[in-house]
Amino acid sequence: MNSPAKLPFFLDCDTGIDDALALAYLLATPSVDLRGIGTVSGNVSASVGAENTLKLLSMAGFSTIPVAVGLHHPQAGEFGGGAPHVHGHDGVGGVFLPGSGSAVVTETAAEMLVRLAHEHAGSLRVLAIGPLTNIAEALRLDPRLPELVAEITIMGGAALVPGNISAVAEANIRNDPEAAREVFAAPWSITLVPLDVTMSNALEEEHATQLLASSLPLVHALGEMLAHYSGFYEGIFGRRCCAMHDPLAAAIAVGSVALRTAPVVSVDVDTTSGPGRGQTVCDLRGQYLGYPVQAGAHCRVVLELEEQFAPHLVERLLSMAPAPAAKPAPAAV
Amino acid sequence: MNSPAKLPFFLDCDTGIDDALALAYLLATPSVDLRGIGTVSGNVSASVGAENTLKLLSMAGFSTIPVAVGLHHPQAGEFGGGAPHVHGHDGVGGVFLPGSGSAVVTETAAEMLVRLAHEHAGSLRVLAIGPLTNIAEALRLDPRLPELVAEITIMGGAALVPGNISAVAEANIRNDPEAAREVFAAPWSITLVPLDVTMSNALEEEHATQLLASSLPLVHALGEMLAHYSGFYEGIFGRRCCAMHDPLAAAIAVGSVALRTAPVVSVDVDTTSGPGRGQTVCDLRGQYLGYPVQAGAHCRVVLELEEQFAPHLVERLLSMAPAPAAKPAPAAV
Repeated sequence: MNSPAKLPFFLDCDTGIDDALALAYLLATPSVDLRGIGTVSGNVSASVGAENTLKLLSMAGFSTIPVAVGLHHPQAGEFGGGAPHVHGHDGVGGVFLPGSGSAVVTETAAEMLVRLAHEHAGSLRVLAIGPLTNIAEALRLDPRLPELVAEITIMGGAALVPGNISAVAEANIRNDPEAAREVFAAPWSITLVPLDVTMSNALEEEHATQLLASSLPLVHALGEMLAHYSGFYEGIFGRRCCAMHDPLAAAIAVGSVALRTAPVVSVDVDTTSGPGRGQTVCDLRGQYLGYPVQAGAHCRVVLELEEQFAPHLVERLLSMAPAPAAKPAPAAV
Repeated sequence: MNSPAKLPFFLDCDTGIDDALALAYLLATPSVDLRGIGTVSGNVSASVGAENTLKLLSMAGFSTIPVAVGLHHPQAGEFGGGAPHVHGHDGVGGVFLPGSGSAVVTETAAEMLVRLAHEHAGSLRVLAIGPLTNIAEALRLDPRLPELVAEITIMGGAALVPGNISAVAEANIRNDPEAAREVFAAPWSITLVPLDVTMSNALEEEHATQLLASSLPLVHALGEMLAHYSGFYEGIFGRRCCAMHDPLAAAIAVGSVALRTAPVVSVDVDTTSGPGRGQTVCDLRGQYLGYPVQAGAHCRVVLELEEQFAPHLVERLLSMAPAPAAKPAPAAV
């Protein structure tokens, strides 16, 4: 069933509009074998994120991909209620998605990750585009996880640009700094996709229009979601467009994006209660010398791409095959 | 004695090679009336900095400018011994400076600042190019200081570039974060000159050569110091050149440098013991909208200049008048 050329992936997400785009990107990529999806509280609660994910999978004809609900609360404190001003109260910008008829599996997201890491030892790719609560939990469930996972790509943080939830912190990391610190300290090969590249690779109105014109229900729905998302980003950028945080991380995890500047450097996470809480402290002091090797560093921080990302994203999404068992959308219940 | 057109200045420094350049820049600027100088432990101890300052003033024929020794230790912990690898063990790169024959005054640096602020109420300019220990002490001596001082210019911090003493912290701020936090919280008009501009405005070998060729003893000595300083920066930049931290702050305080990007934003200082300790947390999230007004913000953060600084610096230093009472350098004692 799975071509040996396909890369097994585990996705951990908080679906969320840009998570929906990232999920669609993975589903549209022939080399990706998405083995399972965990959800975590972030843009929405872990359970709402799971519900959204099931619906999106169903729309694309991928209902067989299992979805596991992960942790609701971060390590310190409680889930703060998400980001309805960004993603809408339902996480998908108020866009109607047909019911999936599917249910989440009984294992947790962390358990699923550990199981898949053993089943695909040495080859599993992890893509984490929400707070890192589940990933840290999986590291505690099985400290051998870093040996088993081929690589982990994380959307989060800000290196040399401002944060988006505080002056220096990005939302995914700031929503569970303690978990993030554990994940960055673990001895695996990390690729960090921070605001440095996601904010400078916006999807413009013309791209959203292209998605809206698609006859595929999922792609059309993504175009509708972007109308909501653009409304939020208009207040940030001064024009209707959208930062493509999560889909860019997906494309980098897949290897479809050429990176211009992506040094491997030490990364720490600020877990204090000071003004830097949640900051990804990346040691980029070697920038004048082309980033000399830092002993022990194992995190590649993506700072610049070779090309703008949005055209590739749109092309990939528009290439999706119609869902094999596509059914007409049932009436809302 | 003082032309009414001149601006009264108080300089707080930790002399230091680039402090020496900043001092010379002020002395070479006709519109500056340097009323007093305080020293603080940073590049060197407060007492060594005072000794260096007295010698430099003497070489330039400005021995009448009073020098006050400030605090030796930061608010938390103890003075760490300075930066001999950057500035040499004597703070001036091992360059011989003739004895000054002058002594420091009996008041402390903080007392001098408070006195001058009252004597020049509403017009005193403060230029702080070392750790902010003395300035915070002066705020405690007289909480009215912010009303009395016209403006304060601070060399320190890093906004959107790496730090120079940790991944995110610059040395002046990191050497006394608690003092810095008090200074940034006080209600005065601050101009911050961070690594964002000082690292991108280097003085190159050709400039050092021009200073070395000067017949003025002070300017020639500065050229000699730069040979030492360039040796350190070669390890940072990969070529012999020098970041012009303190003289750039001096020139901005004087108003001689055109600023391209210098938004007024909220600035906090990280005083935690986490990885961000000593970071200047500048809220630059408004960058996409041209930095909308932030209520309560009173710190102008200099991010970009209109032109490279080094040519102006060299021209200004070479314009210095010979010391009126210049004496031949006495033999070393």
